[in-house]
Amino acid sequence: MSASTDSSLIVEQMAAEDHVQQIELLTSTNDDYDGVVVEMDQPMDSTTFVIILRASISNWKQQGKKGVWIKLPIHLANLVEALIKEGFWYHHTETKYLMLVHWIADSANTIPANTTHLVGVGALVVNEKKEVLVVQENSGRFQGTGSWKYPTGLVDKGEDICVTAVREVKEETGVDSEFVEVLAFSQSHKSFFEKSDIFFVCLLRPLSFDIQIQQLEIEAAKWMPFDEYAAQPFMEKNEFLRYINEIYLAKIDGHYSGFTPVSTKSKFSNYQNSFLYLNVGGLKRCNSL
Amino acid sequence: MSASTDSSLIVEQMAAEDHVQQIELLTSTNDDYDGVVVEMDQPMDSTTFVIILRASISNWKQQGKKGVWIKLPIHLANLVEALIKEGFWYHHTETKYLMLVHWIADSANTIPANTTHLVGVGALVVNEKKEVLVVQENSGRFQGTGSWKYPTGLVDKGEDICVTAVREVKEETGVDSEFVEVLAFSQSHKSFFEKSDIFFVCLLRPLSFDIQIQQLEIEAAKWMPFDEYAAQPFMEKNEFLRYINEIYLAKIDGHYSGFTPVSTKSKFSNYQNSFLYLNVGGLKRCNSL
Repeated sequence: MSASTDSSLIVEQMAAEDHVQQIELLTSTNDDYDGVVVEMDQPMDSTTFVIILRASISNWKQQGKKGVWIKLPIHLANLVEALIKEGFWYHHTETKYLMLVHWIADSANTIPANTTHLVGVGALVVNEKKEVLVVQENSGRFQGTGSWKYPTGLVDKGEDICVTAVREVKEETGVDSEFVEVLAFSQSHKSFFEKSDIFFVCLLRPLSFDIQIQQLEIEAAKWMPFDEYAAQPFMEKNEFLRYINEIYLAKIDGHYSGFTPVSTKSKFSNYQNSFLYLNVGGLKRCNSL
Repeated sequence: MSASTDSSLIVEQMAAEDHVQQIELLTSTNDDYDGVVVEMDQPMDSTTFVIILRASISNWKQQGKKGVWIKLPIHLANLVEALIKEGFWYHHTETKYLMLVHWIADSANTIPANTTHLVGVGALVVNEKKEVLVVQENSGRFQGTGSWKYPTGLVDKGEDICVTAVREVKEETGVDSEFVEVLAFSQSHKSFFEKSDIFFVCLLRPLSFDIQIQQLEIEAAKWMPFDEYAAQPFMEKNEFLRYINEIYLAKIDGHYSGFTPVSTKSKFSNYQNSFLYLNVGGLKRCNSL
């Protein structure tokens, strides 16, 4: 899907001012909400681009289109200013592209929101001796404090929470594990510029025990008796971590149920399978209790 | 925090090539990770900008800085191309600004990720007669299908999930409600371009019963007997919604525990209070059962 003077451009004959004019239009695909998506690719000077863009918008308006999305790869940064001047605004971005959008209908703008949250996981891996797998990090808030904490990390693009937890444990400590359940989660705001985060604390069962640390991020890792872990001085000031400790104790006493992932068709049936996290024991009418 | 030739620019004397030269530097603030943040404000031509930017980067490198964040409001879109040519890339965006970043150290890049997830809620509001508050929407997947569904919506920037659920119910139906718990959640991928979403299904208790619909988004709303709601034909193909129905039935039988929000100091003590969602009944050693 390119947009230069090459053959990938749609060439349409349009009657204008008593003569037939050849106008090139941007190649676009339709979305499900009366919108069009243009994926720019070929280099173009901004003057030419504006002429083609205006003709394209006129054409989309005639078709009753409402929203126009333009995905601009980083090598076409020369076109950003022109798009802003034509009424587009920033919608979202990845490292290598910028998505701009413009509402061309007279009706109220129903452009969906950009993403708002980072998603993180904390992985509580406890062995049969009630020892917690803990690490000391090379950077971040806890660096140099001597505090031992459970492994944490961010969910990668497109990754399932239950996969992230197992991956982070393996990467940071070399330990294989299997996901048991989400014990609890928190939502925090302004954790990173104006962004929010959701942090899932997960319980995992270890499948191997030898530790091999990741040198880049991790200073040290070890199995630490739970009581010693929970008695560390920094816990005193950290209400969140004390809750998690209580939850773990209730869990091993058999009283606490978190949320377990089950694979389902997504809430919209045309999507691929996705995980629903729920209290499976509660659903089975406490069969497991 | 401006960056033009006005007095808000830092003017430093730097020795260069045997003569003293006056170099203007960009005004910046330090972050907690050896980075600097520049909030651009005043208009500037891109040639001048590049001269000042290069001098500033040289100065930051001498100070041992590693990451450079530049927040560019939409009216300074003329500077995007210059920044990309100088090695910056897109990090994140809001409607009215673009955040670019550049790693200027020799060490491995530790720039944090952009947000990856939209967060949505579904609000299951059930009254004492076991009637569910349901709506038909003016747009979206269920439009025109005659399907009755519970109110749903996206979490606004900086909004707590438990607040979103109550707000959406009020906006769509006029009904006041209070938050009870998160019954379950799902994570879906590629729900919107390359983005993922987390969708929390919440149970709410109604505090008022008269319905007043929001004309813009909602076609109709009513209280519907739960059995009739659960028997709608589209449920047959929707495994997700059938799980939620089973969860609700287990809930009213007293078997199911979801996650209730409790206000805590966030996991990092310098943050404001935030909500931790957990199985409060399980933590109280089933006192509530």
